[in-house]
Amino acid sequence: MKSVIATLITLVVLTAGTAPAQPLPDTLRARYEAIAQRIIDAALADSSAFARLSYLVDTFGPRFSGTPQLERAIDWVLEAMRRDGLENVRGDTVMVPRWVRGNEALELRHPYRKKLAVLGLGGSVATPPEGIEAEVLVVRSFEELEARRDEARGRIVVFNVPFTTYGETVRYRVLGAVAAARAGAVASLVRSVTPRSLYTPHTGGMRYEEGVPRIPHAALTVEDAELLQRLQDRGQRPRLWLYMEAQTLPDVPSRNVVAELVGRERPEEIVVVGGHIDSWDVGQGAMDDAGGCVAAWEAVRLLKRLGLRPRRTIRVVLWTNEENGLRGALAYRDRYRGELDRHVLAIESDAGVFRPEGFGFTGSPEALALVRAVARLLEPIRADRVWEGGGGADISPLMREGVPGMGLRVDGSRYFWYHHTDADTIDKLDPHELNLCIAALAVMAYVIADLPEPLPRVTAGG
Amino acid sequence: MKSVIATLITLVVLTAGTAPAQPLPDTLRARYEAIAQRIIDAALADSSAFARLSYLVDTFGPRFSGTPQLERAIDWVLEAMRRDGLENVRGDTVMVPRWVRGNEALELRHPYRKKLAVLGLGGSVATPPEGIEAEVLVVRSFEELEARRDEARGRIVVFNVPFTTYGETVRYRVLGAVAAARAGAVASLVRSVTPRSLYTPHTGGMRYEEGVPRIPHAALTVEDAELLQRLQDRGQRPRLWLYMEAQTLPDVPSRNVVAELVGRERPEEIVVVGGHIDSWDVGQGAMDDAGGCVAAWEAVRLLKRLGLRPRRTIRVVLWTNEENGLRGALAYRDRYRGELDRHVLAIESDAGVFRPEGFGFTGSPEALALVRAVARLLEPIRADRVWEGGGGADISPLMREGVPGMGLRVDGSRYFWYHHTDADTIDKLDPHELNLCIAALAVMAYVIADLPEPLPRVTAGG
Repeated sequence: MKSVIATLITLVVLTAGTAPAQPLPDTLRARYEAIAQRIIDAALADSSAFARLSYLVDTFGPRFSGTPQLERAIDWVLEAMRRDGLENVRGDTVMVPRWVRGNEALELRHPYRKKLAVLGLGGSVATPPEGIEAEVLVVRSFEELEARRDEARGRIVVFNVPFTTYGETVRYRVLGAVAAARAGAVASLVRSVTPRSLYTPHTGGMRYEEGVPRIPHAALTVEDAELLQRLQDRGQRPRLWLYMEAQTLPDVPSRNVVAELVGRERPEEIVVVGGHIDSWDVGQGAMDDAGGCVAAWEAVRLLKRLGLRPRRTIRVVLWTNEENGLRGALAYRDRYRGELDRHVLAIESDAGVFRPEGFGFTGSPEALALVRAVARLLEPIRADRVWEGGGGADISPLMREGVPGMGLRVDGSRYFWYHHTDADTIDKLDPHELNLCIAALAVMAYVIADLPEPLPRVTAGG
Repeated sequence: MKSVIATLITLVVLTAGTAPAQPLPDTLRARYEAIAQRIIDAALADSSAFARLSYLVDTFGPRFSGTPQLERAIDWVLEAMRRDGLENVRGDTVMVPRWVRGNEALELRHPYRKKLAVLGLGGSVATPPEGIEAEVLVVRSFEELEARRDEARGRIVVFNVPFTTYGETVRYRVLGAVAAARAGAVASLVRSVTPRSLYTPHTGGMRYEEGVPRIPHAALTVEDAELLQRLQDRGQRPRLWLYMEAQTLPDVPSRNVVAELVGRERPEEIVVVGGHIDSWDVGQGAMDDAGGCVAAWEAVRLLKRLGLRPRRTIRVVLWTNEENGLRGALAYRDRYRGELDRHVLAIESDAGVFRPEGFGFTGSPEALALVRAVARLLEPIRADRVWEGGGGADISPLMREGVPGMGLRVDGSRYFWYHHTDADTIDKLDPHELNLCIAALAVMAYVIADLPEPLPRVTAGG
């Protein structure tokens, strides 16, 4: 069988790089084109995935680590997977943090009194019981904070940083409390990380640092960050009162959901496909990441329904605690450490189940070329592009161990409008787009799991 | 001078209706084209209007009827108008309702517990102190409520009506409590009246009816209305708990702001231009309607600054209590009843100060033709269209007395995203677009106030 792969690599490596992938070599095309079309047709004909996603998010609500809702949702998923006839269905126990938001309030106290929207950031400490009232220092960057260090002492620092990219802007959410505390601030607030707002605060993770005082850290809306900026610029010296009851309780058990379609020839070789079952404690976590979980799960259920059992095992993994700890991802890596060299590929879907455009892939050039060739099978649904680089938070520990990683890429134009808010709800999603995601995941997972040889990890010789 | 008007009317009436207005007759064109361009150039060169709008909304906050914030904002406007050198600046006392929202809460109680966003509707009664917990009946129309009348008794009725037009959809906000109470409901909730949501509730006015029990009435988000619909459709029987402290206190005094640019020849003839100074108790009321107020005010200040004193008086009126009573508009009509036949035109700007497209006009066909001709002067800023019909809530009592009415028409694509929410803030507005609104209002008000003859109220003979 080696000759097929060798031929394929030779063919596609020559034309890889930024050029579009060439059509599949005839050998593979003949083998998989009809199957891919069958998968796509079946995925698009089915409305059960969206109904299942809707039931999940509507019935259990947000699935925050440490809550009974998350565990009830996991119970339901495990039971449904068993009913689906998936194999080796289990919940692998993981200890997860338990951060409890409690009541929160933010008020403008000067120049007039008004309740403002606020969402504490995951892991933040509480304010004292009387809250914290202080004048505000608004800054537009860490550099401005550094330059105005003398003004920060005793103040509530507000990071009013307009959204550029998530990666760039989220730094203020993650690192803002440390920077503000170093400058002597009594609390810090971050403008919600989003390009668009209808007065919607966005929560998310944050960090403290050893040796730096832990100050309360929360997100306010774009609107209020801009208001405070204008008041400050005009010399009107705005004052805020912040109240947070947040506490971190002892870790509690949760579970990674694992289920398989066992391979017919090389069951010990594994293609992982999944998302994270936990969410923040707001909204429904419909796109972050119930949609990704259901897409991965339904992709494998679809293969089973179609009688398509690949050469290798496809393992659905729904990691727990991605949002505020990544404990599920780390626990998976540790539990299956002995199998990691037989993990052929790990695919994550965690960017919302909007219209899929293809995949981001991190691996060897040969594997990239192969993946590009496989992705051509998704041309009928225009999900055939493969970008170099990409993966996902939950598969990052696997990728660091050498497992090739892949993230489903979707139309990302709206994701950050809803991200980590009460607006992350299923009404923003579209059944057809979900089905397209399922088709893309199913085709990619099936073909990679069925190829004669595993995805090459190291650069092949000429 | 009559011949100018007569000629003009003859010229334009022949081509009015749906056809675009013809170019201004030479006599008027010669008279006003250069002036209009001067007004436009000056309006667009100035950044002070946006700064003033920003100061107003940032410093005083929302300006709800019955609040000190509204009266402080009015004090500031009156003082600034006097400093501007406007004439006959005064605050005409008006008694306004005082509805106080108090604390509010909405919780999903089944199938899981979650706090939901809620905004009571202006005028609603409170719940009992323990709140109201009940199973939900979701309906998509008054007709469906009627058809399911038996299921409404003892329930919280939720009107889940998707936005079509404001006029169509707002009926459920205004009349929902009466319809629900007639069916025996214990409270009613309306899906926020908006085409777009990021989990943002929209408040607004509502009505009770004599002889029908007064039940609490509030708005929930689009997201939660859809959630409840799905739960109900799935047979999951959602339950809610609603808590409202709302109360209606005795009327308190507020003021209509009035200021003038007194006419040089016929000061007793009046062109009114204005907006409403009050807002809801959320957000900043930046577009509803501080922007309209500042646009009208700045239009007249601009004329004064340019030394353009028209034949007739231009009167800026910033009505109070448009939102939950229309008391300012009614009081203006009553106070100036003796002058109404000399009100040549009343212009309102209350649709947000987005990019102006022209005007809606309600009046005689001759006046419409004339207004269309005048609007051609706004061709350089593409605000030259005149639609038949239109006006504004505050000028509606005047229009019912025969005063020709006109509303500034703007790009309305986003207004209802923000309408009556915490997201009605100045960051959504654009200084250039505000200046365009000012230019449009200034040119229209000036020319109509300066024409040799008043705008004809009755149809002229052929």
